[in-house]
Amino acid sequence: MSKLSLEDARSIVRAALDHAATIDAKPLTVAVLDDGGHLVMLERQDGASALRPEVAQAKAATAINLGKSSRAIAEDAAARPTFVSALSALAGGRVLPAAGGFAFRNTKGDVAGAIGITGDTSDRDEECAIAGAKAAGFSPDL
Amino acid sequence: MSKLSLEDARSIVRAALDHAATIDAKPLTVAVLDDGGHLVMLERQDGASALRPEVAQAKAATAINLGKSSRAIAEDAAARPTFVSALSALAGGRVLPAAGGFAFRNTKGDVAGAIGITGDTSDRDEECAIAGAKAAGFSPDL
Amino acid sequence: MSKLSLEDARSIVRAALDHAATIDAKPLTVAVLDDGGHLVMLERQDGASALRPEVAQAKAATAINLGKSSRAIAEDAAARPTFVSALSALAGGRVLPAAGGFAFRNTKGDVAGAIGITGDTSDRDEECAIAGAKAAGFSPDL
Amino acid sequence: MSKLSLEDARSIVRAALDHAATIDAKPLTVAVLDDGGHLVMLERQDGASALRPEVAQAKAATAINLGKSSRAIAEDAAARPTFVSALSALAGGRVLPAAGGFAFRNTKGDVAGAIGITGDTSDRDEECAIAGAKAAGFSPDL
Repeated sequence: MSKLSLEDARSIVRAALDHAATIDAKPLTVAVLDDGGHLVMLERQDGASALRPEVAQAKAATAINLGKSSRAIAEDAAARPTFVSALSALAGGRVLPAAGGFAFRNTKGDVAGAIGITGDTSDRDEECAIAGAKAAGFSPDL
Repeated sequence: MSKLSLEDARSIVRAALDHAATIDAKPLTVAVLDDGGHLVMLERQDGASALRPEVAQAKAATAINLGKSSRAIAEDAAARPTFVSALSALAGGRVLPAAGGFAFRNTKGDVAGAIGITGDTSDRDEECAIAGAKAAGFSPDL
Repeated sequence: MSKLSLEDARSIVRAALDHAATIDAKPLTVAVLDDGGHLVMLERQDGASALRPEVAQAKAATAINLGKSSRAIAEDAAARPTFVSALSALAGGRVLPAAGGFAFRNTKGDVAGAIGITGDTSDRDEECAIAGAKAAGFSPDL
Repeated sequence: MSKLSLEDARSIVRAALDHAATIDAKPLTVAVLDDGGHLVMLERQDGASALRPEVAQAKAATAINLGKSSRAIAEDAAARPTFVSALSALAGGRVLPAAGGFAFRNTKGDVAGAIGITGDTSDRDEECAIAGAKAAGFSPDL
């Protein structure tokens, strides 16, 4: 039994975009991955640019790839830029040092999947992602 | 204004999966791309394997890349296998010779986007994709 | 009907290179993409080096990929170098932080395509690209 | 001094597309490379699909990469399909076994560059490419 159903992913995406509407966010792209780093659901809002689906997935994949949120990797990148660039190259870009991507846990404490959002500032992207994960009953791993 | 809204994509995906339920299809993954070949929406049903999101996108991208459905490319591949393999290599895999991917047109006759479905037989994948596109008011380019 | 015809692209390239001649620019390469980021026309002047066609396309693709000019991405890169390097890795190089690439809009305000120029300084590359887009009736998205 | 000027490439492309009009060809994409396999000029006609620029370049690059026309490689592929597929993989797709790409020589007998055309049948693609090269004073290496 997978830890994340499509129905869960839909709840997360819906809640994240509902929150985005309340803060009048720019057009967002939301990706939800399973705990193996594979895409379960993605939505790109009207007006979001072409690479955004890859960026949203890369933010989420960062957390699965490295066991840290993409915000934490952004902090690492400030201290060790060449190391994080090498990780990005190694991962074909799927290590992205900018807030907005993190794993989330179910009520048993297991990592169930990861979410990544892009389109507004990194802080606002992350705010929407947190709202989405929490509304669906998951705990962000920030 | 883009030719395909997220709302359109949601209608297509919902109708495709509704049809899948009526024929008791295996777990499907549905990708909807815009007319430039960029992802707008993707859903992977519970139980679908890890590469399915890439496969669904590749089927849809085949139609944007080559101006023919992935069924038509499958027919080309039977006649000219090495040529189609070379196209796949050239496109980083985004030429996939199996039914289930095609572009669709709006009521003005313009290509609005493309859909790709994978998970069941290619014929049934395509059947669900046709149902999805038509229910949302688009004409499949088969 | 596509938003950018080959005839449009020819007008843009011709006007850009005419402007380049008036400022005695170094040998340039000019790429014009459609609004999906796919090449419509490219010309490389005599004496321009081997990678220039990729560079010109990458500058233009930056704008389609991220919804910002390559000049704006160069400014982002000064503040967040590792983040922009990661985007470049994610995009297979098609995020290039140097002025000279931008999307342009038609008279209805829609993005019709993007242009990228390389060969002289980034500022002069961009100057030629602006001249080309404007002469053909398009508004640069700087 | 390069063996192929941009002015030469323009003459080749213009003559190829003029010939295409006389035979009522489907929308074509024409790529002209220098003798190092690097793009000098490309035009994609209205209605040609997204991957066509890569296909046109790959046909031309085949001739520079292997010293044989893409028609000759198509014949090799019939006899040794796995070998040609491996070459395509090795070249990132830039070995394409379908007629329409060949090198051409100047009046001194040196290879000056290569042309690749895609969009109609391979035979008609090649016919247009031959017309283009000859009209500009070059001899096709078929």
